[in-house]
Amino acid sequence: MIRSTFLQFSAAGLAALALAAPLAAQPRAAAQRPIAEAYRAAADSLIRAALADSTAWQRLAYLTDTFGPRLSGSASLEATHDWLLAEMRKDGLQNVRGEPVLVPHWERGAESAELLAPRRARLHLLGLGGSVGTPPQGIEAEVLVVQSFDELTARAAEARGRIVVYDVPFTTYGQTVQYRSRGAIEAARVGALASLIRSVASFSMQTPHTGATRYDTAVAKIPAAALSVEDAMLLHRLQQRGQRPRLRLVMGARTLPDAPSRNVIAELRGRERPDEVVVLGGHSDSWDVGTGAMDDAGGVVAAWEAVRLMQKLGLRPRRTVRVVAWTNEENGLRGALAYRDRHRDELEKHVLAIESDAGVFAPTGFGFTGSDSAYAVVRQIGALLQPIGAGVVTRGGGGADIGPIMALGVPGMGLAVEGSRYFWYHHSEADTLDKLKPDELARCVAALAVMAYVAAELPERIPFGTPTTPN
Amino acid sequence: MIRSTFLQFSAAGLAALALAAPLAAQPRAAAQRPIAEAYRAAADSLIRAALADSTAWQRLAYLTDTFGPRLSGSASLEATHDWLLAEMRKDGLQNVRGEPVLVPHWERGAESAELLAPRRARLHLLGLGGSVGTPPQGIEAEVLVVQSFDELTARAAEARGRIVVYDVPFTTYGQTVQYRSRGAIEAARVGALASLIRSVASFSMQTPHTGATRYDTAVAKIPAAALSVEDAMLLHRLQQRGQRPRLRLVMGARTLPDAPSRNVIAELRGRERPDEVVVLGGHSDSWDVGTGAMDDAGGVVAAWEAVRLMQKLGLRPRRTVRVVAWTNEENGLRGALAYRDRHRDELEKHVLAIESDAGVFAPTGFGFTGSDSAYAVVRQIGALLQPIGAGVVTRGGGGADIGPIMALGVPGMGLAVEGSRYFWYHHSEADTLDKLKPDELARCVAALAVMAYVAAELPERIPFGTPTTPN
Repeated sequence: MIRSTFLQFSAAGLAALALAAPLAAQPRAAAQRPIAEAYRAAADSLIRAALADSTAWQRLAYLTDTFGPRLSGSASLEATHDWLLAEMRKDGLQNVRGEPVLVPHWERGAESAELLAPRRARLHLLGLGGSVGTPPQGIEAEVLVVQSFDELTARAAEARGRIVVYDVPFTTYGQTVQYRSRGAIEAARVGALASLIRSVASFSMQTPHTGATRYDTAVAKIPAAALSVEDAMLLHRLQQRGQRPRLRLVMGARTLPDAPSRNVIAELRGRERPDEVVVLGGHSDSWDVGTGAMDDAGGVVAAWEAVRLMQKLGLRPRRTVRVVAWTNEENGLRGALAYRDRHRDELEKHVLAIESDAGVFAPTGFGFTGSDSAYAVVRQIGALLQPIGAGVVTRGGGGADIGPIMALGVPGMGLAVEGSRYFWYHHSEADTLDKLKPDELARCVAALAVMAYVAAELPERIPFGTPTTPN
Repeated sequence: MIRSTFLQFSAAGLAALALAAPLAAQPRAAAQRPIAEAYRAAADSLIRAALADSTAWQRLAYLTDTFGPRLSGSASLEATHDWLLAEMRKDGLQNVRGEPVLVPHWERGAESAELLAPRRARLHLLGLGGSVGTPPQGIEAEVLVVQSFDELTARAAEARGRIVVYDVPFTTYGQTVQYRSRGAIEAARVGALASLIRSVASFSMQTPHTGATRYDTAVAKIPAAALSVEDAMLLHRLQQRGQRPRLRLVMGARTLPDAPSRNVIAELRGRERPDEVVVLGGHSDSWDVGTGAMDDAGGVVAAWEAVRLMQKLGLRPRRTVRVVAWTNEENGLRGALAYRDRHRDELEKHVLAIESDAGVFAPTGFGFTGSDSAYAVVRQIGALLQPIGAGVVTRGGGGADIGPIMALGVPGMGLAVEGSRYFWYHHSEADTLDKLKPDELARCVAALAVMAYVAAELPERIPFGTPTTPN
């Protein structure tokens, strides 16, 4: 099995590989031209083509405008898949197909949070993905605002029968998102009726941000939603002032049976070693707000365009380049898991996996997870992208959709971008086309195209196997 | 009458005054200490007090949190006035009173804009103040997007029976706001059923921005509303792509009979010439979205605090300092007009009028409209604010609420601030407390306090009469 093979690699062979690589590679490297020299012309032609071509921008605009939000289980997601498949076939790509995946099907329904006291106001709310609904008449209760799980524990007695609000300012995504993931569990543990978070966002214009929440079978499932940053701060100030805010929360959220979806796949078959694969892509699904332009239609379109440009320029590399639009990244990762399971037997032939899921803003390079010898190779490829400012390959990185195959040893990388506004728009109504720029998208296309092409073209494959300790 | 007196001033006397002032002022100036010297101690104590005191911030937070949006005609606006009056009396200010004003009473009611084709989506909409409603079932029509009045004229035949959408990017407020003011008139002229604008905003997170619209008796009153920037751009792209967007617009807007309101006034009576007045303030009303923290609760609270600090520090100037919270700036300017009319006979005794209505962001100084000799004086006062970066007094400036009395000769100025984000939040749900900063509010208080105090304390009054040509 792949997994045991990988374990063998990682436990024993990998360290040896990493040590041996420089020695083993030396004679071959001497016989070959340096990457910077050998692939300069191909890289430059890909860069030029990407910067000159508006196809990616037009497709991104068409996709997001026409199909809108694309939550797993929605008709719009599957319409998007149909369109992607048809267009990929028109492009003349090969093995264009949808690989079936069953995905969660959650719907938010009607929802509202009304401040009842000290004044009446409709608050700005988005239910969290996977949340249960409230009874039809809603939940009416006084609020308890806390700033941390510790404070909730300390005030557990006050939380019973209340709506808990976590007013936690954004620090890093990793830190802050815990309240979205675990907030309902911890609030239920102390007897709260519902759990509201301050949106996980680094800037707000009263725009709430959704995202997935979790439950624990040990405690009750209580409704979970995100307030806008402003409204969470408002409730907190009211409480601090002794004005005792009361809310009525109504949520029609429900989980339906799993729904059929697809990973959409297209290839440029390799001219010499078609069974070896460089896979690149993003995820086709989005939340049910905004149009998921940044997260992650841009990533899908950029990866697709990278492969289309190779095809158009007649740059067919030695190995197969495979573009994948993974489904259901947002609330299940079922596409990523299905890809891993369906392609288990060929994962050792996966030379490199690349994901673009940080927004197609101005690219700076890539973040890479793999062996030292692999890192040495991809850094050299990255250097070909210095002309467009995307030449820096750092240690650490990947993507949610390639995570499951990276865990089995596939070297992986994520496109790195200037992401200062990523968490302004993330999972909100504001994730729309206008937040992106055609020239930045074009540079993302160029970066993905050059990295994928050269990785697929190199005489020697990028070594399989990730480091035993993550970076 | 004041107006003819002013005309006499401006037509004949003013030019002479301006020319004569340097000569006439010279001997007195020699006998007096320069402003920078004479008022340094008082200015510094006001600045220190403003920076050390959190009262203004706490009051701004309380006001906006407790009363919320304060549209003319609403109970919340009058509750705000009651609270202001009570607090001003507690502060020990004098002549605290509400001067009655009848104000327009417009209500938006329920409203929505649904995209029907090529996909269904609820768009982000705010009716414009003063708009009529739609029939209860709404208006359903194909959209015609134009980018200017000229394009509308050129495509007049296409506009008939359609919903016109003006997709006009923000340039300056003055330029862009024309589409909000006149859009419905011009669209009705060519037979459109409704008029939608792209929100007048320099940045958007799907947050629509309201504001007043106008009608013309010569053409039909058609419903007028603002879409988010994103949605206007979406409709435009759909049209350009031939996807023929259709909308259903429902607006329950209606205009009720005028409602009673008040200009809220408090004074620190002058110790020597109480009939001469420096008036300063902002407007108490806001639109019915957000909490009007920036526009303009901050201005009201900053001006009020400036006067409270003088009182607290025992700095009672020669002349009266009068703080006014004008009502109904947003959709009628009735407070400003009522103030002018009620105080017509004392306007020549108005030494200076100061408004803060550009948001209490970091202050840079003031914009001034008045005679050259008056400008020379206020620049010197402004220099006292250099320690807090608010020392620059430029030509041109005032405020909507002091406009009517400035037009009759009262020298006027507006607090100038770092306003790069003003049109991000203006008239939207995002105009909330968190967009402001306590230390910046404190500096605004200091700037208003120093300017008002010194203007009220100077031995010679600031000359009456504005320039005959506006700056």
